[in-house]
Amino acid sequence: MISVALIGFGNVNSHLFKAFLQAEDVRIAQVFNRTKIDAEELSGIPFTSDFAEITDADVYIIGTSDSAISEVSNALKFENRLVIHTSGGVAMDRLNAKNRRGVFYPLQTFSKNKEVDYQTIPICIEAENDDDFALLKNLGKQISKVVHPINSEERAKIHVAAVFVNNFVNYCYLVGKEILDENELPFDILSPLIAETAHKIEALTPFEAQTGPAKRNDRNTIKKHLNLLKNPNHRQLYELMTEMIRKKFE
Amino acid sequence: MISVALIGFGNVNSHLFKAFLQAEDVRIAQVFNRTKIDAEELSGIPFTSDFAEITDADVYIIGTSDSAISEVSNALKFENRLVIHTSGGVAMDRLNAKNRRGVFYPLQTFSKNKEVDYQTIPICIEAENDDDFALLKNLGKQISKVVHPINSEERAKIHVAAVFVNNFVNYCYLVGKEILDENELPFDILSPLIAETAHKIEALTPFEAQTGPAKRNDRNTIKKHLNLLKNPNHRQLYELMTEMIRKKFE
Repeated sequence: MISVALIGFGNVNSHLFKAFLQAEDVRIAQVFNRTKIDAEELSGIPFTSDFAEITDADVYIIGTSDSAISEVSNALKFENRLVIHTSGGVAMDRLNAKNRRGVFYPLQTFSKNKEVDYQTIPICIEAENDDDFALLKNLGKQISKVVHPINSEERAKIHVAAVFVNNFVNYCYLVGKEILDENELPFDILSPLIAETAHKIEALTPFEAQTGPAKRNDRNTIKKHLNLLKNPNHRQLYELMTEMIRKKFE
Repeated sequence: MISVALIGFGNVNSHLFKAFLQAEDVRIAQVFNRTKIDAEELSGIPFTSDFAEITDADVYIIGTSDSAISEVSNALKFENRLVIHTSGGVAMDRLNAKNRRGVFYPLQTFSKNKEVDYQTIPICIEAENDDDFALLKNLGKQISKVVHPINSEERAKIHVAAVFVNNFVNYCYLVGKEILDENELPFDILSPLIAETAHKIEALTPFEAQTGPAKRNDRNTIKKHLNLLKNPNHRQLYELMTEMIRKKFE
């Protein structure tokens, strides 16, 4: 049985909380958060908002905003325990060295009120020593089938790549919706296309899966599209993307 | 029973061919293509590559490249029959007016050797007269549960939006893969993130679903990411996307 204390209760830690509650060999010893959490949400797990009252646990999981991770790790009152964070964009050594350090980064996008299937989420783990690494690996296996050893440098690269395939992809959806909204057309007409575009990538590489006027260098269609785009942002993004795709495939 | 003749056998028409073969009330009268098609692929359906030998059918479906649609419709030897194309980016009136005109645009991305579920694909239809419209609607219902009346102007807007949510999204995947490749990290580590990013959009609007450093205006992370990106194209795209998302959410 691995006992964990969750420090902070944002998107990642609140999803981890649910996953750990269902895991066989994990006990959530305590949740710490600066502000109170609904009793219902805590499902009977002890809560504190006082750093001095943080309880004993095998591992302390800091799930705050990236910018608060260092500060929170400094504020912990104990030493030589295993303290980890869950961020893709923060190196392990940003944690205070008075404790043993590690990272437990679930590579997924979390939104409050949107359940995810933890079993398929890659967990990227890192630790300063072998025993802690083994513990984190074990903890990862409790909630997911996919656990990868990933160091801070690699994780930083993965995090940038994730920004492209998640944040920037979502922004493309947003632009698509804006174009349809302007013309009072329903966004859900694009749903099967969006699903298939993502699905395709499981069978083909993105290079093989690329289609469209930019790839074909179909200047007529490109010109027509640029004329249709009224929003200068949409036009600018269309031009840059088209130019990059065109060059990639010429 | 609706009889169709397929003119051209590219991505769209070869997928339509398979869908029509399985449809109860559709008969494929003939396939026309400039170059020969494997007998096996034709499943016994008559074939010609001679415009003079195109047979009688209720509807002639031109599935060539966009730039060839007009020319092919000019080359048809008959008049006053229903001739349609399947393109998102071409107006109905690019078809020769000697025949009755229409459009049958399946809003999906097709790749050879990648099956799709036609039942969920929105079919956007347009016709010059009510009888032809009714026939195309009926034809659409034979292969899909979703048939929309969409005129040429609307279809052009949908086609641009589709470029964003399909071609540009796929290019973001491609950049993600390039970043991981540079660092010898496996692309499939991003698969669950890619799937969830697309899946989220069924429950949330893209505006609600947006996350990441650009949305939070997290300048530390943005700066770190720009330093990590060695490829100037990646950096340029990151900067533009970030700036647009930042402005959208400020």
